[in-house]
Amino acid sequence: MDKKTGNNYIGIAVLGLGVVGSGFVKALLEEQRAVTVPGSPNVHLTHVLVRDVEKKRLVDIDKDLLTNDFSAIVDDSETNVIVEVLGGEEPAATFLEQALSSGKHVVTANKEVVAKHGRKLIEKAQANNVEFRYEASVGAGIPIISALQGSLASDYISGIWAIINGTTNYILTSMASGGLDFDGALSEAQVLGYAEPDPTNDVEGFDARYKLAILASLGFGTYVDPSEIYCEGINSLHARDFKYARELGYAIKLLAIAREEMESIQIRVHPALLREDLLLAKVDGVYNAIQIQGERVGRLLMYGRGAGSEPTTSGLLGDVAEVVRRMASKGEKVAIVSEERQKALKPISDLHTSYYLRISVLDQAGVLAAISQVFAKWDISIGSVIQKESDDISQTAELVVLTHVSKESAVQQAAKEILGLAEVESIGSLIRVESDV
Amino acid sequence: MDKKTGNNYIGIAVLGLGVVGSGFVKALLEEQRAVTVPGSPNVHLTHVLVRDVEKKRLVDIDKDLLTNDFSAIVDDSETNVIVEVLGGEEPAATFLEQALSSGKHVVTANKEVVAKHGRKLIEKAQANNVEFRYEASVGAGIPIISALQGSLASDYISGIWAIINGTTNYILTSMASGGLDFDGALSEAQVLGYAEPDPTNDVEGFDARYKLAILASLGFGTYVDPSEIYCEGINSLHARDFKYARELGYAIKLLAIAREEMESIQIRVHPALLREDLLLAKVDGVYNAIQIQGERVGRLLMYGRGAGSEPTTSGLLGDVAEVVRRMASKGEKVAIVSEERQKALKPISDLHTSYYLRISVLDQAGVLAAISQVFAKWDISIGSVIQKESDDISQTAELVVLTHVSKESAVQQAAKEILGLAEVESIGSLIRVESDV
Repeated sequence: MDKKTGNNYIGIAVLGLGVVGSGFVKALLEEQRAVTVPGSPNVHLTHVLVRDVEKKRLVDIDKDLLTNDFSAIVDDSETNVIVEVLGGEEPAATFLEQALSSGKHVVTANKEVVAKHGRKLIEKAQANNVEFRYEASVGAGIPIISALQGSLASDYISGIWAIINGTTNYILTSMASGGLDFDGALSEAQVLGYAEPDPTNDVEGFDARYKLAILASLGFGTYVDPSEIYCEGINSLHARDFKYARELGYAIKLLAIAREEMESIQIRVHPALLREDLLLAKVDGVYNAIQIQGERVGRLLMYGRGAGSEPTTSGLLGDVAEVVRRMASKGEKVAIVSEERQKALKPISDLHTSYYLRISVLDQAGVLAAISQVFAKWDISIGSVIQKESDDISQTAELVVLTHVSKESAVQQAAKEILGLAEVESIGSLIRVESDV
Repeated sequence: MDKKTGNNYIGIAVLGLGVVGSGFVKALLEEQRAVTVPGSPNVHLTHVLVRDVEKKRLVDIDKDLLTNDFSAIVDDSETNVIVEVLGGEEPAATFLEQALSSGKHVVTANKEVVAKHGRKLIEKAQANNVEFRYEASVGAGIPIISALQGSLASDYISGIWAIINGTTNYILTSMASGGLDFDGALSEAQVLGYAEPDPTNDVEGFDARYKLAILASLGFGTYVDPSEIYCEGINSLHARDFKYARELGYAIKLLAIAREEMESIQIRVHPALLREDLLLAKVDGVYNAIQIQGERVGRLLMYGRGAGSEPTTSGLLGDVAEVVRRMASKGEKVAIVSEERQKALKPISDLHTSYYLRISVLDQAGVLAAISQVFAKWDISIGSVIQKESDDISQTAELVVLTHVSKESAVQQAAKEILGLAEVESIGSLIRVESDV
């Protein structure tokens, strides 16, 4: 394994030495077994890219391995594989493109780079006859990427429903079980380290959107640009939405949904009501789950820890091991994306589903009639109405309306008109019901 | 694709043309896409082995392809891959060994053959530099085998908990929700085609035992002989066990469990109480689920349809596609089983867990004292006791006892002594509680 012996080995460089990078380097240094196979060369850590080589580190590492100069890595002929855990779009995307162009295999956990630049990077990898692997970019160690590239590639995937952001799922679970409001649940998640100091990327749904773009690209064999995915975050949800939803028999989750229809792909990230007897509705805390609908395999669900140093390291090690196996056996290139099924994305305005609306109204006769009229005008039929929490002082009450299946654009127009009614104070929530899971 | 054109193709023979075989052949004939990759040769059905070539078939197939002579297949140089869906130990095991020896790749859905002869067949495949794949042998299309051979192979698996027999899970779900007793639930399952006319293999737990032997062999990197796995079926369960379990907060499932301990492997198939908030407890009907505990990946669960023609075909097609990919790229051999972790199996008598006992007693004073004394003698402490269903005419009652964690051998001894008490009529059920899931 030592360079100086002249023995064969596989050189691995790591970009980034944060929490995930440290966990990965520690595992690599301690366990050859995890990434080698009988007959394969051993692996050897060649470099670790850091911003500051003097900073104190979480992992006990030979200081000579640290560098802040990427060219020292990409130009090193003894580095065969580059593992990227920098996170963020740049400089990661540029580094990975250079790495592949220089004939290095690449393993990454970076969903933003894979979602935004995956197409180019996959082509670059194929052109240079090297591996580009990204199991850890979605659901950490949950082997959904290899499943979609492997055994499920022979099936015909028509739907994906996923809870793929641990931060928001932790917050929603707190709101549902502890009755906390969004700000309280977010603060709690921040204190526990489940949410970043700036939680935008998670709570606005951007992180889930990157991951859904990756899953849909693989599942449907078509490139999906994450910026084209309709996206709504969770910060407008209120504690009492969870209470009302539970009374109606539903949980509320931030769902990432992609479905193939005849002519287009319906793809969206938003909070959704889920019938509480569904497995997805039971996915609580920081856990993730991805449910696939395949023509032959039927309904398939994978559940596990979707983030954190150890689960992400598991996903990275699996990918490195696969690269090592293929290198050891003069491996193949797997064609990952075919162009066959390229379809247009369907706008959210064409969605048909049921809707949950929580409407604050003046507590007086005729309110329901006025609201019902608007729904009727837009051809929206009402499944149930519950009146909630009359407030004697302000003379207001809340109506919780569950519609039958209706068109998104009609519901949005109706909501606008309802908001314009003299009897209506505000629309507290408008949440889609996901009933085809 | 036609033989006569002389073009390259991959020849596939199928052994067996029952429900699964017909589904697979139909898929293969209709969809090249499912099993080929860009740049790979097309596939071509060369033979189908049947017992009676004259019998009417479920699938529209060229009669010239049917044969009842295996040697015509194994000696055919234009057949590269053999897909086996005969089921049962023989002649399947002999055929597969001959196929591998003749340099054919093998794909099988036969859990009995893989569990009993896997070791020999894997060695035979390695010696002949061909593939031996068996994704469909456990959980049909659920990609648990490739996950254990692939990305999870880099992790350290310490536990497996699985619901891997759809027939028994369907029966248990009927007993739990419909209040049916075992015989009624079995008849219903037979009428619906979810249970065989002779249900022994499923209800006695033998099918689950084969599958668990396969999972444990892969997960722990050690060969497990299915006949050494402790096994109890579901036919002694009563409808009221489900009622009482629910009152205590539990579901009852036929679980296949394998756990690695310091010196040995604990491995068993039996009905178990599961806390009803666990995901595994929600796996109902004919669905299967496999939960893995990995050192880094943590708790990981895969859920899906575990049987049937379509899901099994999905698993088979995935394996065939993988063989095609590897053939197209002069693929590797993956070392599937290492000998490193070979450990002894732990006898069931050493198990430590909680136990549920339903005891029919004479409805008189002093009964509980007598029973408690026996438990105390064997160092078994009682968690809760509920008295159920006094019967005025026969002067009997039922006690439901939930013990704290105790040793299996002590509980079995105590049960024997309790049965010998004058006040005790019978022990209706003795079910292990699985609390470490």
